[in-house]
Amino acid sequence: MKKYKAGIINVTGYAGLELARILASHPSVELCSVTGRSLAGKKLSDAFPYLHSLDLPITESLEGEVDIAFMALPHKEGASLVPDLLSKGMRVIDISADFRLKDPPLYQAWYGFEHPCPELLAEAVYGLPELKRKDIASARLVANPGCYPTSAILGLAPAFKMDLIEPNAIVDAKSGLSGSGRTPTAKNIFCEASEDVCAYSIGTHRHQPEIVQELSLVGGGVIPRVTFCPHLVPMSRGILSSAYARLKQPVTDEEVKEIYRRFYKDEPFVKITAEPPHTRYTRGTNMCFIYPVVDALNERLIVISCIDNLVKGAAGQAVQNMNIMLGLSEDTGLKAIAALP
Amino acid sequence: MKKYKAGIINVTGYAGLELARILASHPSVELCSVTGRSLAGKKLSDAFPYLHSLDLPITESLEGEVDIAFMALPHKEGASLVPDLLSKGMRVIDISADFRLKDPPLYQAWYGFEHPCPELLAEAVYGLPELKRKDIASARLVANPGCYPTSAILGLAPAFKMDLIEPNAIVDAKSGLSGSGRTPTAKNIFCEASEDVCAYSIGTHRHQPEIVQELSLVGGGVIPRVTFCPHLVPMSRGILSSAYARLKQPVTDEEVKEIYRRFYKDEPFVKITAEPPHTRYTRGTNMCFIYPVVDALNERLIVISCIDNLVKGAAGQAVQNMNIMLGLSEDTGLKAIAALP
Amino acid sequence: MKKYKAGIINVTGYAGLELARILASHPSVELCSVTGRSLAGKKLSDAFPYLHSLDLPITESLEGEVDIAFMALPHKEGASLVPDLLSKGMRVIDISADFRLKDPPLYQAWYGFEHPCPELLAEAVYGLPELKRKDIASARLVANPGCYPTSAILGLAPAFKMDLIEPNAIVDAKSGLSGSGRTPTAKNIFCEASEDVCAYSIGTHRHQPEIVQELSLVGGGVIPRVTFCPHLVPMSRGILSSAYARLKQPVTDEEVKEIYRRFYKDEPFVKITAEPPHTRYTRGTNMCFIYPVVDALNERLIVISCIDNLVKGAAGQAVQNMNIMLGLSEDTGLKAIAALP
Amino acid sequence: MKKYKAGIINVTGYAGLELARILASHPSVELCSVTGRSLAGKKLSDAFPYLHSLDLPITESLEGEVDIAFMALPHKEGASLVPDLLSKGMRVIDISADFRLKDPPLYQAWYGFEHPCPELLAEAVYGLPELKRKDIASARLVANPGCYPTSAILGLAPAFKMDLIEPNAIVDAKSGLSGSGRTPTAKNIFCEASEDVCAYSIGTHRHQPEIVQELSLVGGGVIPRVTFCPHLVPMSRGILSSAYARLKQPVTDEEVKEIYRRFYKDEPFVKITAEPPHTRYTRGTNMCFIYPVVDALNERLIVISCIDNLVKGAAGQAVQNMNIMLGLSEDTGLKAIAALP
Repeated sequence: MKKYKAGIINVTGYAGLELARILASHPSVELCSVTGRSLAGKKLSDAFPYLHSLDLPITESLEGEVDIAFMALPHKEGASLVPDLLSKGMRVIDISADFRLKDPPLYQAWYGFEHPCPELLAEAVYGLPELKRKDIASARLVANPGCYPTSAILGLAPAFKMDLIEPNAIVDAKSGLSGSGRTPTAKNIFCEASEDVCAYSIGTHRHQPEIVQELSLVGGGVIPRVTFCPHLVPMSRGILSSAYARLKQPVTDEEVKEIYRRFYKDEPFVKITAEPPHTRYTRGTNMCFIYPVVDALNERLIVISCIDNLVKGAAGQAVQNMNIMLGLSEDTGLKAIAALP
Repeated sequence: MKKYKAGIINVTGYAGLELARILASHPSVELCSVTGRSLAGKKLSDAFPYLHSLDLPITESLEGEVDIAFMALPHKEGASLVPDLLSKGMRVIDISADFRLKDPPLYQAWYGFEHPCPELLAEAVYGLPELKRKDIASARLVANPGCYPTSAILGLAPAFKMDLIEPNAIVDAKSGLSGSGRTPTAKNIFCEASEDVCAYSIGTHRHQPEIVQELSLVGGGVIPRVTFCPHLVPMSRGILSSAYARLKQPVTDEEVKEIYRRFYKDEPFVKITAEPPHTRYTRGTNMCFIYPVVDALNERLIVISCIDNLVKGAAGQAVQNMNIMLGLSEDTGLKAIAALP
Repeated sequence: MKKYKAGIINVTGYAGLELARILASHPSVELCSVTGRSLAGKKLSDAFPYLHSLDLPITESLEGEVDIAFMALPHKEGASLVPDLLSKGMRVIDISADFRLKDPPLYQAWYGFEHPCPELLAEAVYGLPELKRKDIASARLVANPGCYPTSAILGLAPAFKMDLIEPNAIVDAKSGLSGSGRTPTAKNIFCEASEDVCAYSIGTHRHQPEIVQELSLVGGGVIPRVTFCPHLVPMSRGILSSAYARLKQPVTDEEVKEIYRRFYKDEPFVKITAEPPHTRYTRGTNMCFIYPVVDALNERLIVISCIDNLVKGAAGQAVQNMNIMLGLSEDTGLKAIAALP
Repeated sequence: MKKYKAGIINVTGYAGLELARILASHPSVELCSVTGRSLAGKKLSDAFPYLHSLDLPITESLEGEVDIAFMALPHKEGASLVPDLLSKGMRVIDISADFRLKDPPLYQAWYGFEHPCPELLAEAVYGLPELKRKDIASARLVANPGCYPTSAILGLAPAFKMDLIEPNAIVDAKSGLSGSGRTPTAKNIFCEASEDVCAYSIGTHRHQPEIVQELSLVGGGVIPRVTFCPHLVPMSRGILSSAYARLKQPVTDEEVKEIYRRFYKDEPFVKITAEPPHTRYTRGTNMCFIYPVVDALNERLIVISCIDNLVKGAAGQAVQNMNIMLGLSEDTGLKAIAALP
């Protein structure tokens, strides 16, 4: 069978490493080139002993005939490289935030610098398959969503789409530490992060405009207010979002659950659970588990939405997008079940 | 100096053990009797080797002349014993929920059984010193607040008192595992709780009516709606509540912070922080760290409130109440700083 | 392609669940029957939501035409069922300890009861492929090794085989909590196991005679002394054994490393590492990473040996044995790389 | 009562912060000066919010009339400052390794540089109170022992003293992450350290010569061989050492336990336990729990020894030494019991 050739730019961060792991066992794709500046020259299996079977050399830039490139450099750093990759005929999936926000002034306001290639913004497709499947299928450039937004948007989309709630939501998210990356800081060492919970970037997190942008598209143009408050919890992987919104009119718990089940009826990676889900159910998998429940006493809808921030929140979703772009079965290489405990 | 004599009924749960630890070094109180049915006959130091210096025997019931009794039996179990303790002239601090809710039908609705001694409900004082100091000082029976309510009420009281917010709040709480006790279950073993987050008792948690009751008292009688959603996070101690409410009118971030600082001005155990607090700051201490912030974009107030669920959320607050009842300096025996990391 | 049919007796323990997970994606085997007494009647995916794609019903006993049965009941409970399974023509892999020790009196001394079917002891093959491959290939009944013994034996086998060390070793092992199973106890709840290390069963652990038995076979009949001291560390998966033994004569570090590399030259699941390995490298994989090093100053050999106790220490090794017994490529269904972090 | 004045040089590391915490509640000592270069100018309570009641300014160097100075700078950095402190009449307790090894060439071999003030080596007293009490009492300069050595030496001292074992031991130690300090590295971030165990510095750890030096003093001059192998386990605090040695002649388990109990009979901070101790028993306390057991089958003595690496392994032991030097009751300010869970 023809094997597509994939490359990862900046394989050395957690998202890049996770992409390498998933692609290494993808039946239709061959991971043939990985880059990373700090570790260039070393073999992947030497730099990261747990990837003992991946002896690809880490190079300065992509090498060989790559069909699909995963851009995993931090914001701004990778954007300027994208036009060149596209010009070489590659399809590009960008893990960074650079092509998610459609409005350049909004991007500048939240990310602090002018967008390096705004001309690509219109073309880039926000890579959330459950909402954007058709556009992704014909895209050259996919902007892979942020982890928190994936969880929040999937959790609230049915409610917005079916006009169940006021366009004014609160998303309280709890994330594991891998969401903040591999770079050591005073705050993410074990002794500072273990046995601790904290809130951060309250109402100022860059994922907030992304959530608002996508939910307004789902909600037929109404721009919702979204108060987004992320928290760090002492685990490596996982995001649990708890979303709260006022119900426009009374609706029973079973009606809401049915609306959610129907909205995600044929989705391979979204499952409406019978009980509130645990983030551990998603560990190492591309699943998103959602549990909507009506708080009738206070006329609110509460939606719990769990993902693995590195998989459905990054690398797994990127591979899911790749499968769509290449016309493969969407769950190819993504069938893993959580290895619990 | 005269030393008061204290006793703990059911020292074998986490709250009871924490009480023993705190009272063991209290300069004005002597822990002279501890009870526990399953471990009766053993010395505390033999049953719990880490309490190596506490060689009190665990007995079936309180022994000796006890001035102040801490009731740490589960809900309902201890309530029926309280009248007898009071009749013996003891002052009683009840760690359970039995005397917190003032309305017997409300108690029955949430706890599932008729209150065993409703005649004591009017007399019992809800033991939150920052709001109830005077009543506690003259009380015979104090109902020690729940852990989640302590965090939530302290976090929202200033905003309700000063009429800053609509009486319709969301409290999203994250708690360590010790909140659910020492009894082993399929859900709280290490392998099931580690590397995991989940929501539970969404909108149905027994602490919800308690939060509503106390905030309505603070807010001059207006009964607020409170959507309470607790979560378990993989740590042993700590609660972080994130509260969200609509601002009645615009107010600046600095104005809100000033209101909070003034409200808690002389409180020894509440501190308004400059940055969002971490639960670890409270570990092993009776402190509550609060951080209010205005989400101007969405016209919301967000309040982060951290406590150690076993200290300010249970045993520490009980000792704080005891200090008030005995006319001692309120922070006696409660001056510990967190032992970090 | 012909698919063999596999069944799991007692799927509800951690080893059973791990077997289900691995077999679910095995290309040549179909998991067609799983049993469990406490959860009989439920679907696996309902009892364990994270196994959302495994909707097999949990039954009281094996159903259908099973080619290979995995016995995952506790010691003694399953042994009596084995003769019947064999008589039905199934091949059986026993995860329990019941068929590991060859000597019935030794079994009785360590396990506390008479062996239920000693007539099968001679036939049963100790399922450590790296040492017993040929015998496994023709076996009807394989006794899957214990987790600690797998790590210890693989770590010391080359040294014993090549007569490098005195037959008198110390094995200090550190294990995650899943090794002690899913049953909740006072000791394995999160609050008791987190942020803690302890030693247990010092010199009295049942795995000690197993280690001695197998190393004496490797060492040409010399019965070694093995002091085995296990410890629990606050993680879910993983075993790291540190083995210490006196060198019979001086040997350089490089010579020893070369001996180890040669001994395990073509083994798909054993790798000699350049640096001391981390247990996390093995997480969710069937790998064993070994690092031998010479302590020249004290004339000792030290060997670090890491496995995932649920995979190479139980379910993965069982599937590896199955692959050998069925004549499949040994790494079929076992190619997973650790999903780190 | 006269209060002695204490100062901490480099309060910003974990040992320094722990010293600040302990001294803050010491009844006979006033912490009056703390230094730290990176945070000079800030108040301790602003730099470390959990130390909310310690509003001492962090300065570049000690200020005021300090009676006793705690030197908590890294190796070599602080040594050159010590002569000056002594000349000012201060007593100095050095937390670093600079004055522990008596032999300058040995120091150079293990630490990689010439000793900055070898003339003080003879005078400096190795600060292990249980073995060096008298010398500490009259010392000007105390070399506070390393964490691993404290655990190992206390665990083996009775056996060496009473000539129970061959002078050839193995010490396999398991430590929490705080032992490697506050500086963020690629290896100590939460995502790399959680859910993991590894060995490091096998046979090459700097604490090895320290253990050998002190045990040879206990053993009447016989220089033992000690194979020291440390490991990191996923917790913040705690060290558990498992020591193994050949018994010179048969001895019963009860005889050994009695020898140990007698050796440490009046020690306030060493307790021989009835069951193998857990590191958590020591958390936040200055205790060392020891459990010796005879492995009669293999003629070995095994000793389990637990401490909190930051307390008895550093700051608590330093304060214990200070109490001795100042003629105070040895457990002043050190009476804390572990706050469990």
